[in-house]
Amino acid sequence: MESRRVGILGGGQLGRMVQEAASRLNISLTILDEPVDSPAKQLNANQPHIHGSFRDPVKIRELAESVDVITVEIEHVDTRVLHELEASGKSVHPSPATITLIQDKYLQKQHLAKYGIPLADSLDCSDQEAIERAAQEFGYPFMLKAKTMAYDGRGNYVVSSMADLKDARSKLAPDVPLYAERWAKFDRELAVMVVRSITGEVSSYPVVETVHKNNICHLVFAPAQVGRGLTGTSDETFSTSIQERARRVAENAIASLSGAGVFGVEMFLMQDGSILLNEIAPRPHNSGHYTIEACYTSQYENHLRAILGLPLGSTEMKVEAAGMLNILGAGENTYLACEEAYRLRGATTHLYGKKECKAGRKMGHITIVGDSMQEVHTRLLPLVMAIDPSDKPPLHLNPLVSIVMGSDSDLKVMEAAAQILTKMSVPFELSLVSAHRTPERMYHFGRLAHKRGVKVIIAGAGGAAHLPGMVAALTPLPVIGVPVRGSTLDGVDSLHSIVQMPRGVPVATVAINNSTNAALLAVRMLGSFIPSYRVRMERYQSQMEEEVLGKVNTLDNVGWEKYEYIKH
Amino acid sequence: MESRRVGILGGGQLGRMVQEAASRLNISLTILDEPVDSPAKQLNANQPHIHGSFRDPVKIRELAESVDVITVEIEHVDTRVLHELEASGKSVHPSPATITLIQDKYLQKQHLAKYGIPLADSLDCSDQEAIERAAQEFGYPFMLKAKTMAYDGRGNYVVSSMADLKDARSKLAPDVPLYAERWAKFDRELAVMVVRSITGEVSSYPVVETVHKNNICHLVFAPAQVGRGLTGTSDETFSTSIQERARRVAENAIASLSGAGVFGVEMFLMQDGSILLNEIAPRPHNSGHYTIEACYTSQYENHLRAILGLPLGSTEMKVEAAGMLNILGAGENTYLACEEAYRLRGATTHLYGKKECKAGRKMGHITIVGDSMQEVHTRLLPLVMAIDPSDKPPLHLNPLVSIVMGSDSDLKVMEAAAQILTKMSVPFELSLVSAHRTPERMYHFGRLAHKRGVKVIIAGAGGAAHLPGMVAALTPLPVIGVPVRGSTLDGVDSLHSIVQMPRGVPVATVAINNSTNAALLAVRMLGSFIPSYRVRMERYQSQMEEEVLGKVNTLDNVGWEKYEYIKH
Repeated sequence: MESRRVGILGGGQLGRMVQEAASRLNISLTILDEPVDSPAKQLNANQPHIHGSFRDPVKIRELAESVDVITVEIEHVDTRVLHELEASGKSVHPSPATITLIQDKYLQKQHLAKYGIPLADSLDCSDQEAIERAAQEFGYPFMLKAKTMAYDGRGNYVVSSMADLKDARSKLAPDVPLYAERWAKFDRELAVMVVRSITGEVSSYPVVETVHKNNICHLVFAPAQVGRGLTGTSDETFSTSIQERARRVAENAIASLSGAGVFGVEMFLMQDGSILLNEIAPRPHNSGHYTIEACYTSQYENHLRAILGLPLGSTEMKVEAAGMLNILGAGENTYLACEEAYRLRGATTHLYGKKECKAGRKMGHITIVGDSMQEVHTRLLPLVMAIDPSDKPPLHLNPLVSIVMGSDSDLKVMEAAAQILTKMSVPFELSLVSAHRTPERMYHFGRLAHKRGVKVIIAGAGGAAHLPGMVAALTPLPVIGVPVRGSTLDGVDSLHSIVQMPRGVPVATVAINNSTNAALLAVRMLGSFIPSYRVRMERYQSQMEEEVLGKVNTLDNVGWEKYEYIKH
Repeated sequence: MESRRVGILGGGQLGRMVQEAASRLNISLTILDEPVDSPAKQLNANQPHIHGSFRDPVKIRELAESVDVITVEIEHVDTRVLHELEASGKSVHPSPATITLIQDKYLQKQHLAKYGIPLADSLDCSDQEAIERAAQEFGYPFMLKAKTMAYDGRGNYVVSSMADLKDARSKLAPDVPLYAERWAKFDRELAVMVVRSITGEVSSYPVVETVHKNNICHLVFAPAQVGRGLTGTSDETFSTSIQERARRVAENAIASLSGAGVFGVEMFLMQDGSILLNEIAPRPHNSGHYTIEACYTSQYENHLRAILGLPLGSTEMKVEAAGMLNILGAGENTYLACEEAYRLRGATTHLYGKKECKAGRKMGHITIVGDSMQEVHTRLLPLVMAIDPSDKPPLHLNPLVSIVMGSDSDLKVMEAAAQILTKMSVPFELSLVSAHRTPERMYHFGRLAHKRGVKVIIAGAGGAAHLPGMVAALTPLPVIGVPVRGSTLDGVDSLHSIVQMPRGVPVATVAINNSTNAALLAVRMLGSFIPSYRVRMERYQSQMEEEVLGKVNTLDNVGWEKYEYIKH
């Protein structure tokens, strides 16, 4: 179907997964890398690959002769020859200019700063004097970084105090140009894969959270669970979600570059909710492995589509949640997590066919998908612990249910809902949103809730009880209303205020003061799509039945005259 | 990780997809097939494959020498040598006995009949006299079938009338033994992939619907949309879903065989809702291609796990719905659907790398996934039409919403719900279920609804209005109650009957007579998990807003004195 031949510089695991996508599309791929049986080459018996270095101009030119489009799975390639090939009319993606820019992290940041991308402040450090100036400017700790040939934490040095200052230079490879960066006291690390078409159109995958261990990517959670907190504090964070802002930063950064392909954009989520871009990889990225099982179109297929000028595939997730664990070389313990993965629902193991298992080498990865992040986390835990029993990955969960009430006096009624959701293991949030006293908060809460991953809203209110209906007017989500009984009218006022909504805006109303039922209704709504919650609901219903049958038994045994009613 | 080597007889597209799964698990696979560059061999540059026929005992023995476990991707292999290898202690899966049994369709059916598997009646037809006896027994039309070497409709002949009887024999390959089968007047064709572990434990994938064209598999829909009809008519169909029954038939059939692996079980869904088994394939199957993108573990990986005695992977779907389209050789038009697939969300193309494109040859397939079958169908349509503009795949949809009411007098109130769901493109059903007059129907309706794919129930009732609460007591699904106003008490009786549910069993109650809001609430519940419905809800909310803003405009223009209220 596709007659153009693609050549790729590098044949490691990223190339291997590009190869998988290429085979499915009958796209001819020729691989340039040193090992004769590199991970990517193993999967392609169709053509003679080129055995040599992706830094060797002769080999790159040899590859160029046999293919129509050249791409990379690693950025540490010889770009001079790529520039030369591009000038001679060969398609090279991403553009040699982009690869060159990204090879120098300091140039990369200067470029991005010009485009208004938020970054940690940085300073060129050509000599010891400059390093000391950086210390004065940034204070301690600050980062000293190699501009080039840095990856997986190599080329980074944390200058913690004045004592470190003197021999900081010697901690990094000699002759490598350096720059300093202000310490980013981040809360979490995020990443976004962006795909850029041949015409410069960009499209981003969901924001993921990455967890590093010894500076190497350890875990990835998709989508990033950054939906907690009803609304932010600054003007910007008030009206947009972290997800939206991170995607915008990533897309703007990639839009500023040239050439087609997928790009990995690593970012910091700062404690105030703001985003800083950390660095860009001009190729498929470890943080995007999960896209194979979890998205409509994988990063690998989209990379091929992009560089061939084909229509880009959808970057949306097809499952609710995914997690990824890297399998690093660890001698005979390397594959313990893989053995465990066989016993886990939703786990897919990818091994890279690497013969030599050096310590810390990326030997494979496992992707876990599920219908909620909680499920993914539960499944991931035994894998992580198979590698390191003391390891406990961070558990961040977007609230699936948001409980809000007009006044803290409603809490005594609404707490039963919180208890049920806790019992049923539903991640939720509970806060005050008053229609009458905090209308602006209510407005943004209603507008943002679904963008934060909330699936159902429970709103309790008494008296005039406007909150449920007003929130329903602002959100496309289902809103459950709990009429709270006030001091007069027995709660009938609240009930009628909540249930008698005008045509067009529904509120799912439950009995007066019955927030238990509101929570159970929320669990039923989740259970229609998340089987584990349906199972929990069925178990809850069986338990109620058994409880009554137990009472039947007691009645039969002791007789009605002696039966004592015990209120639960 | 896995040190045992697997050898496979056959290296076509099924072998290719087994190879993909094997590579991911670092499982060494050696392929025996004639073409040097068969689809499976192309993806494995790791070892020398064996070039020869899977019917050639010499080649099979040669394969056996280099591997630990032997399996097949095609059943038309030499089983005598497999029996011999098994006797000598080599692992062969599925067992040679099973493959031998399945090679003879008549023996296969006699075996299954012994195990109580429902089948169309069949008769051995060793001579013309026997064929005539079959005609008398079965009437016209009936099927005359070759016992062996039959696939993709080859070896089947429909005897339509007495005129066909005389030369029926000559319509089929000479010397092939025949049998006759009663005509199965089926409503639809279903299939289930079953995986059988080395210890005989069976686990089935969801029931799918298959659509054939010229006797070749054309489309597959997963899960089969057989959830329509509130409850069945016979005792059995009353209390179990078609899905459950079809899986049970398939699992029982495979449990009766020996050896490990995946098996494709093709079935007929008869017009009365009963199931007949049609035939079994002892290997991965075309109707299970969709499992790669749509299930936790693909049939290919599960086949490898089964034959190696590893824990079986989950057969559950990870997406709500999937569809599969085969790409058959059609000259220069072969890849039209693939070109189209690039533009469709959720489409994944699998091409098999076949160099020669004979008419009707399986060249690839496209799998479409989505968050509802409706979406999958919508996405599939342009693909199907790219191949044949006059083709219209059958549109069966499980109802996502079930509207029930206690009496047909409630219809005038409840029809507004049906109108909203129609407008919002939500597949739904509407029927009568009376708590007081049809309690048995209500019981089975409540118990079965979620097994039929229903996600939300809307129940309308007036007066004592028990239906919503009683249905809520029977189902784990969310139930929306619509209080219908009766001739007295203004509907307050219905409202209180529905909303004041006891702790433990919630009903989402909407305003009196406001079934519009019930439907909108159902759409919101769906929209929390099916983005296209959330988008529709957002659009609906914008339209309401625009409508009011239009009235603001009119008021401003004509003034309040001249303003005329128009009731919509």
